[in-house]
Amino acid sequence: MSKPGVVLLSGGLDSSTVVALAQRDGYDLHALSFSYGQRHTVELEAAKRVAAAAGIADHRIIEIDLGAFGGSALTDASIDVPKHASADDVEEGIPATYVPARNTVFLSFALAFAEVLGSSDIFIGVNAVDYSGYPDCRPEFVAAFQDLARIATKTGVEGSTEVTIHAPLMEMTKAQIAAAGTELGVDYSITTSCYDADSEGRACGRCDSCHLRHQGFVGAGLVDPTRYQPDAAPS
Amino acid sequence: MSKPGVVLLSGGLDSSTVVALAQRDGYDLHALSFSYGQRHTVELEAAKRVAAAAGIADHRIIEIDLGAFGGSALTDASIDVPKHASADDVEEGIPATYVPARNTVFLSFALAFAEVLGSSDIFIGVNAVDYSGYPDCRPEFVAAFQDLARIATKTGVEGSTEVTIHAPLMEMTKAQIAAAGTELGVDYSITTSCYDADSEGRACGRCDSCHLRHQGFVGAGLVDPTRYQPDAAPS
Repeated sequence: MSKPGVVLLSGGLDSSTVVALAQRDGYDLHALSFSYGQRHTVELEAAKRVAAAAGIADHRIIEIDLGAFGGSALTDASIDVPKHASADDVEEGIPATYVPARNTVFLSFALAFAEVLGSSDIFIGVNAVDYSGYPDCRPEFVAAFQDLARIATKTGVEGSTEVTIHAPLMEMTKAQIAAAGTELGVDYSITTSCYDADSEGRACGRCDSCHLRHQGFVGAGLVDPTRYQPDAAPS
Repeated sequence: MSKPGVVLLSGGLDSSTVVALAQRDGYDLHALSFSYGQRHTVELEAAKRVAAAAGIADHRIIEIDLGAFGGSALTDASIDVPKHASADDVEEGIPATYVPARNTVFLSFALAFAEVLGSSDIFIGVNAVDYSGYPDCRPEFVAAFQDLARIATKTGVEGSTEVTIHAPLMEMTKAQIAAAGTELGVDYSITTSCYDADSEGRACGRCDSCHLRHQGFVGAGLVDPTRYQPDAAPS
């Protein structure tokens, strides 16, 4: 019998691969996506396509007001999404696209969902190798959230089960991620990773996320199946 | 100069007292309340009254969909709020009014808000003495969240400041809380703690929260200023 699991699904390359890895390992997935005032609501359309393609029947989209606090290029229209000529050009430090405490908020909702489902397995596609500068994508963050989750819930009090936060991509390069997903049959053409996609979901080819993703396919010796805006495909 | 702080404000006895304690200690408070599908939306009206009375100019109300998962008498209309003849009658274990991962979700939003404000101080009115059976009201929960917060954010990466989760009521009895707030001038008549208040915000007098609150005033030798529904005042 398959085990219930909760997966955070953005509809990008990483979370789509996590879905495939968790299903390979026998989990019956329930997916959670967020509408959080981000510019890239086309992400949600991608998340729906990915959930449908993976046969996930229970996909919940939670509306949250993370944009109410401001402070990020992804939720605040007055801050520009940085564009770069190449991946080598990406700045050091924490980027403007960082959304304060985003993964903490997302995992908190996943924990609530898991508790109601009676699941003790939560999957998130964070990655520390192609390090994006986000504090909440580091292994120590995931470990700290797991520590918290184990005492924050009913099962923590009753000692019945211990929540595990699975971050299977943590130590993988983008090339390894693209290769693993391709082998498991993930159709990356339906996914969207771009921070600045157009209304048709086509990628800009110049943001940090586009650069990292494209280099992943190149590094894995795969054709990049991403749909780009006209003349925007990275060379 | 006063330090910025974020307070989780439900509009009940506990959080109203936390506001007074934090202001006494020199914090310039920004308040955060949630509309989360709870039955007691009258709570939000109480939170607004408390914020106004305390002179908090920045009070944000975040809409979240915690009820989408179900599983609690406070967010699911199909589950009854337990009523008891007296406080001695309150059941053991985790009550039906527990909302899965609620304080984890609330603190995550507070962390996002604090990060945007440049504040490293978050206040929450959880309490372990009059233990309500909620796993996320325990001292170890607060400590684990603080550990998480210190590595989940920009400041955690930069090592510039360390987030502190203040839970000043943790070791206080309800009587001590009522006495402390009264001494600091808190007007408890404008607060609402009841899980099942009517549309005018009047308390039912019979839920766990009403019992604990009433006993707090009695224990402190204070007149209970709560507005009850007709014939509902605890004896």
